[in-house]
Amino acid sequence: MAAFTDATRVRSDGEGGFEADLDPLWTVGGKPNGGYLLAILARAAVEAAGTQPHPMSASAVYLSPPDPGPAAVTVEVLRAGRSASQVRARLSQKDRTCVEALFTLGTLAAAGDPRWIDSTPPPVAAEADLLPTPSEAPGTGLRIDMLDQFEQRIDWQAVGDPAGELRGWLRLPDGVGWDPVSLLFAADAFPPATFTLGSNGWTPTLELTVYVRALPAPGPLRVRQRARLLTESLVDQVCEIWDADGHVVAQATQLAAYRMAG
Amino acid sequence: MAAFTDATRVRSDGEGGFEADLDPLWTVGGKPNGGYLLAILARAAVEAAGTQPHPMSASAVYLSPPDPGPAAVTVEVLRAGRSASQVRARLSQKDRTCVEALFTLGTLAAAGDPRWIDSTPPPVAAEADLLPTPSEAPGTGLRIDMLDQFEQRIDWQAVGDPAGELRGWLRLPDGVGWDPVSLLFAADAFPPATFTLGSNGWTPTLELTVYVRALPAPGPLRVRQRARLLTESLVDQVCEIWDADGHVVAQATQLAAYRMAG
Repeated sequence: MAAFTDATRVRSDGEGGFEADLDPLWTVGGKPNGGYLLAILARAAVEAAGTQPHPMSASAVYLSPPDPGPAAVTVEVLRAGRSASQVRARLSQKDRTCVEALFTLGTLAAAGDPRWIDSTPPPVAAEADLLPTPSEAPGTGLRIDMLDQFEQRIDWQAVGDPAGELRGWLRLPDGVGWDPVSLLFAADAFPPATFTLGSNGWTPTLELTVYVRALPAPGPLRVRQRARLLTESLVDQVCEIWDADGHVVAQATQLAAYRMAG
Repeated sequence: MAAFTDATRVRSDGEGGFEADLDPLWTVGGKPNGGYLLAILARAAVEAAGTQPHPMSASAVYLSPPDPGPAAVTVEVLRAGRSASQVRARLSQKDRTCVEALFTLGTLAAAGDPRWIDSTPPPVAAEADLLPTPSEAPGTGLRIDMLDQFEQRIDWQAVGDPAGELRGWLRLPDGVGWDPVSLLFAADAFPPATFTLGSNGWTPTLELTVYVRALPAPGPLRVRQRARLLTESLVDQVCEIWDADGHVVAQATQLAAYRMAG
């Protein structure tokens, strides 16, 4: 089985809730990645609703970063519908609420030519010409353990062109394909675009919303992460994801805190 | 007092929850507008938390459209922090859950020159040169009562240039200024951009996320609503809002169902 599928597994606690094990390998600076936590909540939401198999929208607020180890997931099915269902899910650890999320579940089709789209996939250097981002990049002072679990390739030549933007590829190891749940992770797996704008270090997410639009084709994901507006202490970032065939499969926006360098 | 403030008022039910009266005037086709409902939830969230005065992020899923009339709002403060708090809120009517939302509350500053921004305000014809959208536009078959409560002016010359986009102005009557709560409404007050792409009629919102970035200056709001991707039955739309001084004050994204004409 895929490492990601294993690491996001949930099991019934026998009382209507779920148990999860937050994997120490899917972390940034020792803390589980926010998209990884959202994927765990999505799996619990899909299982609890028992209606539609895929997250179509996921919106989360991040309250308190959990540590690797056991966590509890509680789920409330808000509406179980024929074509879509809506579910609320909460991840907590030692009675501390860590993440709360709202999901729309549905049944996605394979990505194909859309009725209409406002854009074309952005240019990214060929995957084979880019190096995977190391889990401990020199000078960052931050260990990103999760980067040993998948391949992130940033097009460094294109960073900041245009300003505030970075583009690259994401690939799961062992030929494992992306799916709607792992796309939730992918939408938060790129470095913050703020580092192209003079900010360094961690950008803790306050809110993350992801729309999954289609089942991705096999192969790597093309990702564009860009910042839109930096106020005194907050930044919003838009992440767009295309599958290997060039179809949009996920769109995300997040509001995060940041610090300027120096 | 402003009609909007009156129409979004909540009062304690004496048991930790709130009561609201869904106003028949703030409706589209007889049903309360989704941004209007989000504003009601935000007011309850701010009051229940008692910490910070402004919604900074608001993410809602829409389960079942309520009717005008009494509604109940329940609120759970997920985290009460020094600089930000997070709150979950639910609007229900006759024991039916209608909207569930997650908020990040904070203290916003007046809009000013940002640290960085990726764009400039888009061109819109002068407000005085545009007519207010009537509440009953010929040929639409839809009565939009809320359009009698504020002034929406669409730049029809610019509709579809670029494709999938419409721009215009929003103004509250009697010189009433916009604030962070009414900006949540403004983010869902424009027509669906899908009508520029051959779709007509209602586009029921599944998920709506709004980021309020600053306190707006007095005067009208400049609004750009644009569709990004239409799949077989779903569309995502991005709404951006600038204040009268040209500063970004709110950003929204929504996932909605739509139908093609014919």
